[in-house]
Amino acid sequence: MAAGAVLYRNLRTFQIWGANTEVGKTVFSTVLCNAARAKRDRVQYIKPVSTGNIEDADSSHIRRFAVDRHLDKDDAFSSLCLHQYELPISPDRAAAVSKLHIPQDDALLTEIAQVLSQRAELGGWAFIETAGGVHSPGPNGTSQADLYRPLRVPAVLIADSKLGGISQTIAAYESLKIRGYDVESVLLFEDDYYQNDLQLKAYFKQHGTPCRTLPKLHAPQPSKEKDEELMLRYYEKHSQSPIIEEILAHMKQRHDDRIKNLESMPSRAHSKIWYPFTQSTMLSPEKITAIDSARGDYFQTLQKGDSLLRSSFDGSGSWWTQGLGHGNPQLMLAAAYAAGRYGHVMFAEAVHEPALQLAEMLLGYLSNPRLSRVFYSDNGSTGIEVAVKMALRAARIRYGWGPNEKLGVLGLSGSYHGDTMGAMDCSEPSTYNEKIEWYEGKGFWFSYPTVSCVDGRWTVAVPPALQQHFGADKPFRSLADIMDLERREAGREYEQYRVFITQTLKKLRDEGRRFGALLLEPVVLGAGGMIFVDPLFQRALVSVVRSSPQLFADDAHFPSSSSAWTGLPVVFDEVFTGLYRLGRRSAASLLQVHPDISVHAKLLTGGLLPLCATAASEDIFRAFESDDKSDALLHGHSYTAHAVGCSVAIESLKEMDKLDATGAWDAFKRTWTVTQESNDDEPVWSVWDKSFVEETSGRARVDAVWALGSVLAITLKDVSGAGYKSTAAKDVQAALFAGDAPEWNVHSRILGNVIYFMAGQTSTQESVQRVQEVLRKVLV
Amino acid sequence: MAAGAVLYRNLRTFQIWGANTEVGKTVFSTVLCNAARAKRDRVQYIKPVSTGNIEDADSSHIRRFAVDRHLDKDDAFSSLCLHQYELPISPDRAAAVSKLHIPQDDALLTEIAQVLSQRAELGGWAFIETAGGVHSPGPNGTSQADLYRPLRVPAVLIADSKLGGISQTIAAYESLKIRGYDVESVLLFEDDYYQNDLQLKAYFKQHGTPCRTLPKLHAPQPSKEKDEELMLRYYEKHSQSPIIEEILAHMKQRHDDRIKNLESMPSRAHSKIWYPFTQSTMLSPEKITAIDSARGDYFQTLQKGDSLLRSSFDGSGSWWTQGLGHGNPQLMLAAAYAAGRYGHVMFAEAVHEPALQLAEMLLGYLSNPRLSRVFYSDNGSTGIEVAVKMALRAARIRYGWGPNEKLGVLGLSGSYHGDTMGAMDCSEPSTYNEKIEWYEGKGFWFSYPTVSCVDGRWTVAVPPALQQHFGADKPFRSLADIMDLERREAGREYEQYRVFITQTLKKLRDEGRRFGALLLEPVVLGAGGMIFVDPLFQRALVSVVRSSPQLFADDAHFPSSSSAWTGLPVVFDEVFTGLYRLGRRSAASLLQVHPDISVHAKLLTGGLLPLCATAASEDIFRAFESDDKSDALLHGHSYTAHAVGCSVAIESLKEMDKLDATGAWDAFKRTWTVTQESNDDEPVWSVWDKSFVEETSGRARVDAVWALGSVLAITLKDVSGAGYKSTAAKDVQAALFAGDAPEWNVHSRILGNVIYFMAGQTSTQESVQRVQEVLRKVLV
Repeated sequence: MAAGAVLYRNLRTFQIWGANTEVGKTVFSTVLCNAARAKRDRVQYIKPVSTGNIEDADSSHIRRFAVDRHLDKDDAFSSLCLHQYELPISPDRAAAVSKLHIPQDDALLTEIAQVLSQRAELGGWAFIETAGGVHSPGPNGTSQADLYRPLRVPAVLIADSKLGGISQTIAAYESLKIRGYDVESVLLFEDDYYQNDLQLKAYFKQHGTPCRTLPKLHAPQPSKEKDEELMLRYYEKHSQSPIIEEILAHMKQRHDDRIKNLESMPSRAHSKIWYPFTQSTMLSPEKITAIDSARGDYFQTLQKGDSLLRSSFDGSGSWWTQGLGHGNPQLMLAAAYAAGRYGHVMFAEAVHEPALQLAEMLLGYLSNPRLSRVFYSDNGSTGIEVAVKMALRAARIRYGWGPNEKLGVLGLSGSYHGDTMGAMDCSEPSTYNEKIEWYEGKGFWFSYPTVSCVDGRWTVAVPPALQQHFGADKPFRSLADIMDLERREAGREYEQYRVFITQTLKKLRDEGRRFGALLLEPVVLGAGGMIFVDPLFQRALVSVVRSSPQLFADDAHFPSSSSAWTGLPVVFDEVFTGLYRLGRRSAASLLQVHPDISVHAKLLTGGLLPLCATAASEDIFRAFESDDKSDALLHGHSYTAHAVGCSVAIESLKEMDKLDATGAWDAFKRTWTVTQESNDDEPVWSVWDKSFVEETSGRARVDAVWALGSVLAITLKDVSGAGYKSTAAKDVQAALFAGDAPEWNVHSRILGNVIYFMAGQTSTQESVQRVQEVLRKVLV
Repeated sequence: MAAGAVLYRNLRTFQIWGANTEVGKTVFSTVLCNAARAKRDRVQYIKPVSTGNIEDADSSHIRRFAVDRHLDKDDAFSSLCLHQYELPISPDRAAAVSKLHIPQDDALLTEIAQVLSQRAELGGWAFIETAGGVHSPGPNGTSQADLYRPLRVPAVLIADSKLGGISQTIAAYESLKIRGYDVESVLLFEDDYYQNDLQLKAYFKQHGTPCRTLPKLHAPQPSKEKDEELMLRYYEKHSQSPIIEEILAHMKQRHDDRIKNLESMPSRAHSKIWYPFTQSTMLSPEKITAIDSARGDYFQTLQKGDSLLRSSFDGSGSWWTQGLGHGNPQLMLAAAYAAGRYGHVMFAEAVHEPALQLAEMLLGYLSNPRLSRVFYSDNGSTGIEVAVKMALRAARIRYGWGPNEKLGVLGLSGSYHGDTMGAMDCSEPSTYNEKIEWYEGKGFWFSYPTVSCVDGRWTVAVPPALQQHFGADKPFRSLADIMDLERREAGREYEQYRVFITQTLKKLRDEGRRFGALLLEPVVLGAGGMIFVDPLFQRALVSVVRSSPQLFADDAHFPSSSSAWTGLPVVFDEVFTGLYRLGRRSAASLLQVHPDISVHAKLLTGGLLPLCATAASEDIFRAFESDDKSDALLHGHSYTAHAVGCSVAIESLKEMDKLDATGAWDAFKRTWTVTQESNDDEPVWSVWDKSFVEETSGRARVDAVWALGSVLAITLKDVSGAGYKSTAAKDVQAALFAGDAPEWNVHSRILGNVIYFMAGQTSTQESVQRVQEVLRKVLV
């Protein structure tokens, strides 16, 4: 697997970057190596990739000018070049024309990590010198700034003292900074004429980074001997200069501070942070995960011991948000561009490009002819409140209900729509809400059959109370068969569902209950416990509601427009399920239902920051039209449609579509589609192996399993009989966090006795399989 | 005033940037000028700042090698250098050693804008060539990338074809991009050896920007004549090459597309966007402001005519969010760094540096010994819901109320806390909420005296219904006198307030009402209409509530800890008032009250993106402790404590503090403090002139005025008697938007008959005075 961030307690590791080529990276590296040696510290120098004659290579230079050349023996000093290509051109091209091995990017990082790991116990310093400028390509053409980012080694930037060097240095610094590197010092040669150091010292002072100079090198000499002699003299003179001593001391301090800060974070957090959804009496500093940084599918988390960081697979997708990977440079650049172009700008009665473009793009993306309008808010909860305000008003206006008519929502048992009061009121009483002082569930929630794989067999399970209506659990050949709604609609169960739903609604009407919306999480109920609802039941529910206005209003009403809602406005909460989370742009498409209102958040920004879009039909929109200003939809947050969020969302939607279009998920899909009809061009699939799911569902500790899109949910048997307090899932979670290797573990979240996992849309097969592997071991 | 973005319909304006010095900016500029001329287009070349011998200057070069040198006469071609300094070093140093005039940054932009403006009607092309690399300093040392950003002219980047040039080019591109520049084409010389163009073409293709090459220049010639001859031949050959024709056509297309996009935005938005708080029947495309970009205090908005953009003062601070200016590069860099380092990472039971650092910093910032915990959410509404959940639970536990006891909040009439249902329920019925289907006001709201300047006199106005208790309106010598609470507490009105409040609460208790929190917007009620509440009344209210537990519970209870709440938990909604909005870190400090819970958003991120922090006391926190997981505070959004938001907030708090500490607001303060006691080191002040406020309050159309911190609120007389539907404020708003100059206007928002203005914490005196000036004219 890919290497993660490296941080060893006693090995102070820094990476030397150049603001340009030919700025003296190797000279400063040599000075730093020598200065450290002079303090009797051990030193490891690594040049991962070098081009040009090996004689002139930086690692040879370092060795040649080491203060004490005999110290190699006792490991006090070592200088390594990992990959050397002969042509003195950029590494990608030099590697390509050579006959030598070209390491993959990940492999190169692993090599570096291994060298450091072997060196870690000896302690001292390690300096890793890059080649050329910050964006000079590595052996596979990747910009070094991106290539080395997973290691996140603190940087020393060698600034450019030549004409134009101020600009080169600041631009290079920004390119490192925006990727999440910490630049800990800046060094450059003096130059009496250009005096770039004056401006640069002032600039870096503002950024809290020391910037120091050493005297200019001698002019190139005609004789090599003379040149070496002068070089040696330079090193003798400057390797112990107070300037370099100060810089080394600063770097040591920053290294120590970083560790101290990381190690103190859990206890400081324990005393200052009020955590969401966390009973503080059950929390202790040891249980708080300190996260140093993150990249792709992994957090870099603090662990005990000498190697302080390990890669933790982000098993909950950071509360279901992650799609395009942590620290994604494209999303970062989109965010920065919008921050630079707009900051945040007023949205009411104004328009800016990202908000408009995202609205247009999202409406196209959802392929739902009903949806024509986008309303922005900040997160799923607020987006649901907006949706409910929309739906209730539309129903009230259509049916002519007065302001005192109490309206509820129709939904499913176990649904959950967010933590604001209005969103909470959309769900039936549960541990999530019933103790909240102002909570008052407003609606009716149906029970329903569920889908999962049990003992290797795909099943639609019917809860005992519903068996009188629908019969016993039904086995299916495959998940694809369960999702084949067209075929199943022709069968008997669909009619059973419709009859049951109709009878229930009649009873509710006769009790005088009024409803203003059908609110569903399509296909999967997330927070309620990762419940995979039989899609046929949801389809039947929508169908009955839409075809039966008489069940909701005395004055049944069929509008003429085909895109207008009938019965009740149908609201889909796609905050969790939408935007490829379940393998498709929308979960609605799995149900083949076009909702009247659709709510999108979480993956909307690819996993970077909060934004929500509630899309609605023109028919719903028009319900708020009147001559009275106060009939408008009275909702709007200060940062509504903030440009940064909208820009990141545009980039995310584009990128997810591109992944889809270019077949990025084909390898995953193949494990699911072999048994499906070949003409099904939108198959049901998951990044989790079909065979893994089926096999796992047969384990003794496992009750049921399902996987769809990037989600895997495993229900564990409650062997203790403790119900909600069962520790079955907690035990598995703990075993995964303990991990089976020092450099790797799995961070996950549980919901009661369900442990679930969420890959991103850019997760590799390797990542996913590694999790499956460890799950196989843990679930024995 | 500062120049804004320039965009002329017929003058296709581009800025030529170099990825490095010596990459051929002037050669490519000449090629572009000549190619445009060859198409019989008019051309304007501008070199704003040049260093070195005038003979060798770029503007001379351009003229020397113009295709048709005789075309100057009919304005077909013009080449200008605005500032020439003789020494061939960086412009800041060259300017410093010269005896010549050094233009301020703003003045330089204005000069450029004027040249373009004069040229606009002629149409054609304008090319503005920068000096050195993207971050090379301008004449005052500002990086050019920042210096020229207000003009936001589309960029042509001349890439570096030399060794290391790939890195230099990408770094330069990123530095432009993250400031919100649109880079529309990339040009460079061919180089058979380094072949940077291969990698760069692939890179820019991914970014949707064409990258093209021209052949390398000839080697420098010993004879100047020979050199000129070869140069001329080069231009003759390449000025009409298909490559340059294609690039020019692309640039023309991008220019036209930008205008087309801008001009179509209002109607597209009108058909696709569902606007917050907007009655759609009253909206038409003409009323929608198209925002191209923003910088500092100004939006760049679309206007009719040939000059398509003007600077619009962001009078509502983009719904009260703005503090450190639009497009602030520091906030952008903080956001990008966090996006690169983390993306977003899981927060429940985890910790990352920005979230922890912000919590610690905010607790210190608020100087409230009661507050010890920070809970994160996404915006003010959710932060208030969190606060209410906290307070109600604490009260219920303390007083042993059962789950069926209905609890309300105590507050002030006209208060408003956000648009989610729970936040809405905290306010009394009003136009904002009473039509919302699930709204149910839960509480009691006091009436109170208010503060404003009326006819030049600072007054505490008593509403008629309260005059029996408090007497008539009271005049004061100054706002400072009204805010001198220590002195006023000794007076009779304080006792009157206390008696009235106590009697009211007794009556409520006797009616069987139960309350779980006192919830206040300290000093100013925002959305309720910019109401400046008499701070003495708020102080009395807190004092009575805290000292009278017997008014709220049968089992009155005084906890022993001095930091524990008494009576009821006191919640301050500082979403609008806090973090220097009213001139202090907190509005609580103006009241000299330490709330038990304090909610912060809006300015928390300096105006960039949504984030909220609810700070609470340890005593409140402990109310949620139990052995039962479900007693925890059940609230948490997916992006809780997102790293980007927290990092931007840290930067914002630091920067606002720095502004405070370095006396950035001293000039503003001086207009308010001359009459104050000299020993008051935390004066009451505003960025709006005291004399302006007093003078304006005497205008015939004006009812009352107040200013505090960055806020100015003007209540207009409702001459029509139409009440809420009065158009008095709307008329002023329209006059301000019409503006008094083609390049400038004021965008503002109104609340009923109140028009208000909100400067940022980095607004200049010039900005503020310009608004005051136009207000003086409009309010005649």
